[in-house]
Amino acid sequence: MAKKTTKKVRSAPRTRSKDAADRDAKTQAALKDLAGGIAKSALSGVEPTFDVPTRSSSNTNWNRKRGILQMGDAASTRQIFNLGQARKFMQSLRHAHGISRLIDQDKTTSLRGMFYTGLGDVHDVGGKKVGEKTFDDQTESDAILEDLEVTLGALREELHIFAKKRGAMVGNITIEDSGDTIDCRKMGSGGYAIPSICEPDRVKFGKCEADFVLHVEKDTVWQRFNEDRFWKTHNCILTEGSGQPPRGVRRLLHRLNKELGLPIICLLDCDPWGHYIYSVIKQGSISLAFESERLAIPDAKFLGIRSNDFERCNLSDSVQISLNDRDTARAKQIAAYPWFKDHKGWQKEIAKLLKNGFKLEVEALINIDISYVTETYVPERLAAEDWLD
Amino acid sequence: MAKKTTKKVRSAPRTRSKDAADRDAKTQAALKDLAGGIAKSALSGVEPTFDVPTRSSSNTNWNRKRGILQMGDAASTRQIFNLGQARKFMQSLRHAHGISRLIDQDKTTSLRGMFYTGLGDVHDVGGKKVGEKTFDDQTESDAILEDLEVTLGALREELHIFAKKRGAMVGNITIEDSGDTIDCRKMGSGGYAIPSICEPDRVKFGKCEADFVLHVEKDTVWQRFNEDRFWKTHNCILTEGSGQPPRGVRRLLHRLNKELGLPIICLLDCDPWGHYIYSVIKQGSISLAFESERLAIPDAKFLGIRSNDFERCNLSDSVQISLNDRDTARAKQIAAYPWFKDHKGWQKEIAKLLKNGFKLEVEALINIDISYVTETYVPERLAAEDWLD
Repeated sequence: MAKKTTKKVRSAPRTRSKDAADRDAKTQAALKDLAGGIAKSALSGVEPTFDVPTRSSSNTNWNRKRGILQMGDAASTRQIFNLGQARKFMQSLRHAHGISRLIDQDKTTSLRGMFYTGLGDVHDVGGKKVGEKTFDDQTESDAILEDLEVTLGALREELHIFAKKRGAMVGNITIEDSGDTIDCRKMGSGGYAIPSICEPDRVKFGKCEADFVLHVEKDTVWQRFNEDRFWKTHNCILTEGSGQPPRGVRRLLHRLNKELGLPIICLLDCDPWGHYIYSVIKQGSISLAFESERLAIPDAKFLGIRSNDFERCNLSDSVQISLNDRDTARAKQIAAYPWFKDHKGWQKEIAKLLKNGFKLEVEALINIDISYVTETYVPERLAAEDWLD
Repeated sequence: MAKKTTKKVRSAPRTRSKDAADRDAKTQAALKDLAGGIAKSALSGVEPTFDVPTRSSSNTNWNRKRGILQMGDAASTRQIFNLGQARKFMQSLRHAHGISRLIDQDKTTSLRGMFYTGLGDVHDVGGKKVGEKTFDDQTESDAILEDLEVTLGALREELHIFAKKRGAMVGNITIEDSGDTIDCRKMGSGGYAIPSICEPDRVKFGKCEADFVLHVEKDTVWQRFNEDRFWKTHNCILTEGSGQPPRGVRRLLHRLNKELGLPIICLLDCDPWGHYIYSVIKQGSISLAFESERLAIPDAKFLGIRSNDFERCNLSDSVQISLNDRDTARAKQIAAYPWFKDHKGWQKEIAKLLKNGFKLEVEALINIDISYVTETYVPERLAAEDWLD
């Protein structure tokens, strides 16, 4: 053991920017509205209730004009004197209190952290434990947090709650993250780990020469592009989302698209999972429909892999991965999505996938040559603007 | 669409450092030995064979003096004229060829990439496809690559093959990654994404003031420490491995310990999984016993969470997570590991865990206060050098 630490030191204080302070004040006001309404009812002898917008496919609408999924107006009332709702009522207020404290302290926590924050023993009116916890498991806690998001009209990030961090970025852009300047042109082989909270007060854009963003599905593919310095030779930003991109990555891509006007071009597998990832990036998802305006990128492009690439790239039979029954059913579901249903290109794409009877992964191109994807496949399609939108 | 890219550009060339060139020459020599031996046998009319060291628990020994798991001397001979081995023989040579090309090109690829590199149709002597692939799936390919690692006596990283990237780092150190200088003191909220290949020719250590490394199990916990700027107030480096740390993270921790003399202090959950993670960091694992010398950290410390923390920290009953039968069985297995068997502290620790009948996650401390872990728990135990080793 070298030296040791004997001092007990408080955390280094963070400085809250004006943007962050404004945003936090807005969220706190919404929390006070919620709590105030309940207190007012209680004091006037009326049953306290509050409305929670409904998060379900039946309350999700496709806004054709805007090209995004949106939440409808349906809501349900949460009542304290309803045996089926009293527990959720208590949980909601407990978490609302926890969030208010988090914002006061200017700290963030994870979904698991919120679960532990809200955990406690339920007591009866006499102060005796009744052998019940305030939350049985994290699933119960997560659902309440989603309810609070829609009830307060605030993103989870605005509630100071973050998700697991995934995804990396390199390329011709400088960003400022929590006061540190990060030059994404000089991030070595590892790249900049995209944080789970990418709101403008935490992540700011500095100098950016990039012409577009190439978003790839997997970090292993991203590493090939980074090692070949694709972002340098093609003047772009490279991102990956480790599969279905988490909210932080989607928010960052959205902001790169809206604020800097960069096209988001996706390189995903040719299978229903790849198509679904694209669909979520582009139009949003049912479970997060209330956030589509801040996450969806209606003009995102799908560069590949395409189902006709098997012939176009003269691939070996051995790289085919057969579609199973679940894949086939999923492909048909996706083809029926309103935003794909009337899109000739996508109908053709999915029909061809089903006719082929096999999937193709981006990595299959390695069978031709390790850098075929970075030196031939993507450059040719970019030059020809050969993509689906 | 903003601007577009029309040029087809070759990948930017990388410069191979002297270290890397030496390492690659050594690996190529081992590959040539393997191939040369086979060619020589074939030309002299003798059946070509080669030996593959056995990777199994029966061929894994615990080196008490050095405190690491090591591979024994057992090996099996792979024969071409043995119906049960011919396919593996072919696969081994196919991958050896692929690796040799990778090294020639100075490129790296993933396990999945190697699977696709080696994929092809098997032909009969007349050149007709026999309806069989060279590899049925990636599992078959991965096993051959592990065989080649031990056969050639080269780490997977030395074969230019990387694993999925996980883990992040911040703190009082500057590193050089593939020629880029990365100041880990200025990595914002996201941190530096630890690459999957952390060999000295790719990742070099620059200025480092840190006194130790605090390694935490989960990225969500890491974020709390980073947000509280713990590495600044306690002059350390913060790493996380997203659960069981991947090879890149283990290699980096090993190098920080051996080359810079930094103690590696682990903050993991109080459950058999947390204990197993510690065991792998400290002594190595059976599946990678042949790499223990370059991965294991015999003097790593286990700071917590400890089974007596429930009382010591006066935690609420509600944060207990009951041990199930599998946990109990696993805890007993771990207690019987040779490096824990004679260790009084660990025997007491695991006995107390079993007596408690519940696990404790690091996040449980949030129930006391969001920054209890960074401001009280870890500082107090560091000051008292209160850990298990």
